[in-house]
Amino acid sequence: MAPQYAPSLRSRVAPLLLLLQTGFIVIYAFYTEIESNIQVDVETFRNLYAEFQDVNVIVILGFGFLCTFLVRYGFSGSGFNLLVVVMATQWAIILNGIESLYNRGKVRLSLRSLVVAEMCAASALVSIGAVLGKTNPVQLVVIALLEVSGFVLNGWVLQTLLKVRSLNSIMMLHIFGALFGLMLTWILFRKESEQQFEKEKFDRKTGLFSMLGTVFLWMFWPSFNSFLVDSHTPGRKLEVVCSTYLALGVSAVTAAAVSVLSSPRGKFNLIHIQSCMLAGGVAVGVSKSVVHQPWEAMTIGFTAAVVSTIGIRYLKSHMLLAFQCHDTCAVLSTHGLPGLLGWLAHLLLQIIDCEDHTTTIRFAVFHICVLLITITISLSMGIITGLLLKWNFWKTPQDKKCFDDQAFWEFPHLSVLK
Amino acid sequence: MAPQYAPSLRSRVAPLLLLLQTGFIVIYAFYTEIESNIQVDVETFRNLYAEFQDVNVIVILGFGFLCTFLVRYGFSGSGFNLLVVVMATQWAIILNGIESLYNRGKVRLSLRSLVVAEMCAASALVSIGAVLGKTNPVQLVVIALLEVSGFVLNGWVLQTLLKVRSLNSIMMLHIFGALFGLMLTWILFRKESEQQFEKEKFDRKTGLFSMLGTVFLWMFWPSFNSFLVDSHTPGRKLEVVCSTYLALGVSAVTAAAVSVLSSPRGKFNLIHIQSCMLAGGVAVGVSKSVVHQPWEAMTIGFTAAVVSTIGIRYLKSHMLLAFQCHDTCAVLSTHGLPGLLGWLAHLLLQIIDCEDHTTTIRFAVFHICVLLITITISLSMGIITGLLLKWNFWKTPQDKKCFDDQAFWEFPHLSVLK
Amino acid sequence: MAPQYAPSLRSRVAPLLLLLQTGFIVIYAFYTEIESNIQVDVETFRNLYAEFQDVNVIVILGFGFLCTFLVRYGFSGSGFNLLVVVMATQWAIILNGIESLYNRGKVRLSLRSLVVAEMCAASALVSIGAVLGKTNPVQLVVIALLEVSGFVLNGWVLQTLLKVRSLNSIMMLHIFGALFGLMLTWILFRKESEQQFEKEKFDRKTGLFSMLGTVFLWMFWPSFNSFLVDSHTPGRKLEVVCSTYLALGVSAVTAAAVSVLSSPRGKFNLIHIQSCMLAGGVAVGVSKSVVHQPWEAMTIGFTAAVVSTIGIRYLKSHMLLAFQCHDTCAVLSTHGLPGLLGWLAHLLLQIIDCEDHTTTIRFAVFHICVLLITITISLSMGIITGLLLKWNFWKTPQDKKCFDDQAFWEFPHLSVLK
Repeated sequence: MAPQYAPSLRSRVAPLLLLLQTGFIVIYAFYTEIESNIQVDVETFRNLYAEFQDVNVIVILGFGFLCTFLVRYGFSGSGFNLLVVVMATQWAIILNGIESLYNRGKVRLSLRSLVVAEMCAASALVSIGAVLGKTNPVQLVVIALLEVSGFVLNGWVLQTLLKVRSLNSIMMLHIFGALFGLMLTWILFRKESEQQFEKEKFDRKTGLFSMLGTVFLWMFWPSFNSFLVDSHTPGRKLEVVCSTYLALGVSAVTAAAVSVLSSPRGKFNLIHIQSCMLAGGVAVGVSKSVVHQPWEAMTIGFTAAVVSTIGIRYLKSHMLLAFQCHDTCAVLSTHGLPGLLGWLAHLLLQIIDCEDHTTTIRFAVFHICVLLITITISLSMGIITGLLLKWNFWKTPQDKKCFDDQAFWEFPHLSVLK
Repeated sequence: MAPQYAPSLRSRVAPLLLLLQTGFIVIYAFYTEIESNIQVDVETFRNLYAEFQDVNVIVILGFGFLCTFLVRYGFSGSGFNLLVVVMATQWAIILNGIESLYNRGKVRLSLRSLVVAEMCAASALVSIGAVLGKTNPVQLVVIALLEVSGFVLNGWVLQTLLKVRSLNSIMMLHIFGALFGLMLTWILFRKESEQQFEKEKFDRKTGLFSMLGTVFLWMFWPSFNSFLVDSHTPGRKLEVVCSTYLALGVSAVTAAAVSVLSSPRGKFNLIHIQSCMLAGGVAVGVSKSVVHQPWEAMTIGFTAAVVSTIGIRYLKSHMLLAFQCHDTCAVLSTHGLPGLLGWLAHLLLQIIDCEDHTTTIRFAVFHICVLLITITISLSMGIITGLLLKWNFWKTPQDKKCFDDQAFWEFPHLSVLK
Repeated sequence: MAPQYAPSLRSRVAPLLLLLQTGFIVIYAFYTEIESNIQVDVETFRNLYAEFQDVNVIVILGFGFLCTFLVRYGFSGSGFNLLVVVMATQWAIILNGIESLYNRGKVRLSLRSLVVAEMCAASALVSIGAVLGKTNPVQLVVIALLEVSGFVLNGWVLQTLLKVRSLNSIMMLHIFGALFGLMLTWILFRKESEQQFEKEKFDRKTGLFSMLGTVFLWMFWPSFNSFLVDSHTPGRKLEVVCSTYLALGVSAVTAAAVSVLSSPRGKFNLIHIQSCMLAGGVAVGVSKSVVHQPWEAMTIGFTAAVVSTIGIRYLKSHMLLAFQCHDTCAVLSTHGLPGLLGWLAHLLLQIIDCEDHTTTIRFAVFHICVLLITITISLSMGIITGLLLKWNFWKTPQDKKCFDDQAFWEFPHLSVLK
């Protein structure tokens, strides 16, 4: 009877997960070691551990609960997020270590490599925001693995061709993830989306769960931006922390104000505010190398929140009607645009700082190339992934089962025997 | 149609927030710099960062979710809390830096100054607890700015006149905030409050959200109390951490016991326990300079919880009937009385320690003056703020719209088009 | 009228709590001091503080919210958990300090002793998972105190007879707690349990609250396992952190896969996944001294999750039907079996490492003795505690009132006057 309602995933999800997991264990058995086997410094461990946990909270709790706002999709929002993070992180550790594998024969695990892998996983989470509720967990895992591969490839191209520091290339995750997700949801478009999905809404309680996730993201975002800054330059680190903190504060106020301004009845929209109050953190993350003054961070936060809030209010529905692109979490407005804004701020601030004309032009060309490469790789990987996922093999949920936990989760009053 | 139900806030809240925020950015542009531009120590950053995040969690998550217990007021409880913290912190950074601005021409931002500003914001949050649900966000922002100004003024008076260390003057935040809030709610009294508001209650789910906030407050309170203790005296710091930890533990047990004892049916009251189990932390915070033995902390925690639980059970309704003072979160019992108790404990323990008669009397006079000044400033600022808020300009919500998110937030099933 | 519905606890819970708490204060007054009074190192404090807070979060928030999944038992799940932790920790500090009391005349409080006490409290929380919903708070406190006494006794026996390091003996908490809880619930069996309790189920919202607790446990488990590792060997500490991290990741994936595989309709079961994704952390915790390679940790995590998920799906109901042992949170499968698996992994890995035949046999005998002693003490203490709790004096809740907050908590719409 069950498959009449929603296709059973047993034949897909269980083998895929077990196969991938066993594969990872085998790879790890031959090619990884924990750094400590060699040597590790008391200082390094102590310096990084608290921030490692903060990033952990951001990626697992923050993103996970941010996605619980859909009224009947909370289990999936938080549960699948965890599944995706775990798979993507394991995969990213291997991919990021390929170079060291080539040089030393082993990938070394350290707190730093775990966090870098989690940040790669975060870019996959951004992408998944665009297709949230319209895909099944098998598809999500496939998306995550391909997205992370694309993102690591992008980082590698940027580092090899343009000598971009990993500190900066990793922060392209917002732009990369948003564009990748956008392509994905464009290819996977369903006619049904043009009318609003019946279950795509929030209620009093799911709004609060989502608020909880957002607040954690908001509180620990300074750690996310500052983690990769060398801890031997605490001044630099403090600068990034303060900038992110101020930008986030300004974003929150501005998002609230613009949300009221643009509302037909002059009310706040909780989900809009939640997504947009992080815009400042995203933008400062991308431009952090050149933000030195508090007002610079605050202005970036202000602009990012305005762009983001207006984007989520108007752009989201236009994207749907004009381009048939249904973006559940509005990742374009909440990660894509603030990311681009941060990129622009980086360019402008660097140009102002430069005294020499040649250096300015050289930097501008370099900076534009970084963006173009990122856009090209993200768009093409997004399209490829989207086409792959159109295949029937994946048992995409029917329109009626979108945004509904019951397609994937046992509920006590429905189960024959618990 | 909308304004018939609740006055639209577009013409008030959006301009106020945008104006204030732009103003802050301009002030920050001219008068602030990040400390790192000058010099910062690896140690200092590392020592403070984890505790900075703990205080962050307390102020934003803890206080925010503590206020979600009202059954139809969760979005406002957590959302407006965030808004208020962000505005108040930005304002407090400026006010706290006026002296340094005068001396060096710039306010320096550091982790320490951010945390001190957040503690000032916390005093505003305490005040707001008294009027929770009966004011609109415009009023809340105004209250927060005035309260913080009063609190910083109080600290400045105490430091200038009496040479109180900032470590101690900041901990008066509980007494200051509670009395300020009490005056506010007394001036803003509504006849309707005499009958119970229909929506002023909690349910199974909102009780749990509120529990979540409380638990975070409870867990991280040791960081809140110990942050300002000089990190070069780790022994002192450990003492404060252990004292607060023990006092909180004793408070939790005692609050539960007294809640059952004083209940007509011999049951626990979750909201009472939540508020009162923090009483020990508040009291130890105020008296921390002189608490050295575990039993001292535990006795303070025990007494504070007894006073607080009895206060919330009986005093709250008496305040309403006798003084027409409707105190939503019972801040008098949960912050005011434990704060005063902490003050008293400080006095007693110091007197016991003193061997010399003259020193004892001198200290007592000094200590009483500290309290009297704090009370005077908080009461007068509270009355002034209350009178200001009676002005019609602020569009106070009607009685029917009290404790209701729908006056301020868009809900999907009510909006014409999402 | 009230007692007709549920026996009032006023005459039991309030005196018990007040008496115990006063007793603790008196004991603390005479026999404890804070370490700082003597001497404390800047380094030590700084190293431990962040991890101390992580363990705090695990024990109070994590375990507390893990128990909120029952649809009508959220207040009790989180509230009684807090009460139990606080009582058990205070008691464990005293018990753990008896030796130092004997030598130096005082128990010294330090961050380390607080965390060790919280870990002892955690073993009580594991036990309580087995009887969750079927006991009243008075019984829970009694269980906690007796369980902690047993656990500390067990540690003392292991240390005295077999020279087991406290690092290892404390990690037996999972095995000890699970077996103790199992005996308890076996002795306290109710006929009613054979039919499913009407209220023993979860819903959309309580599932999410429980998810929240689980995610915190999952994120901070590395701190729980690594806390007791000497911070002067950061390599060792990093190894434990990475191992736990990887094992938890593999556990999450495997638990999800096995949950789908074993479900009659091919769906995930959220509560099963929640409990089982921690299995890897439990197993690595027990075997951490000998896990050095990533693949070892991952294989342990994989096996633990398979065993645990299959256990929770099939063993739980078999235990009920065959042995009349109703295990609410399935602690046997989620702590007992993974703990035993970790013990086995420890044995195997150590044997492989040994080159010498005699040493191998000696270690095996030693390791088996450790297990046997733990099992003996936990089973006998569990039986004793169970028999004690059968006494009518404790006013065990009736079958109808099981899994229901209304027996213990005031709800606004039910109370005569708030």
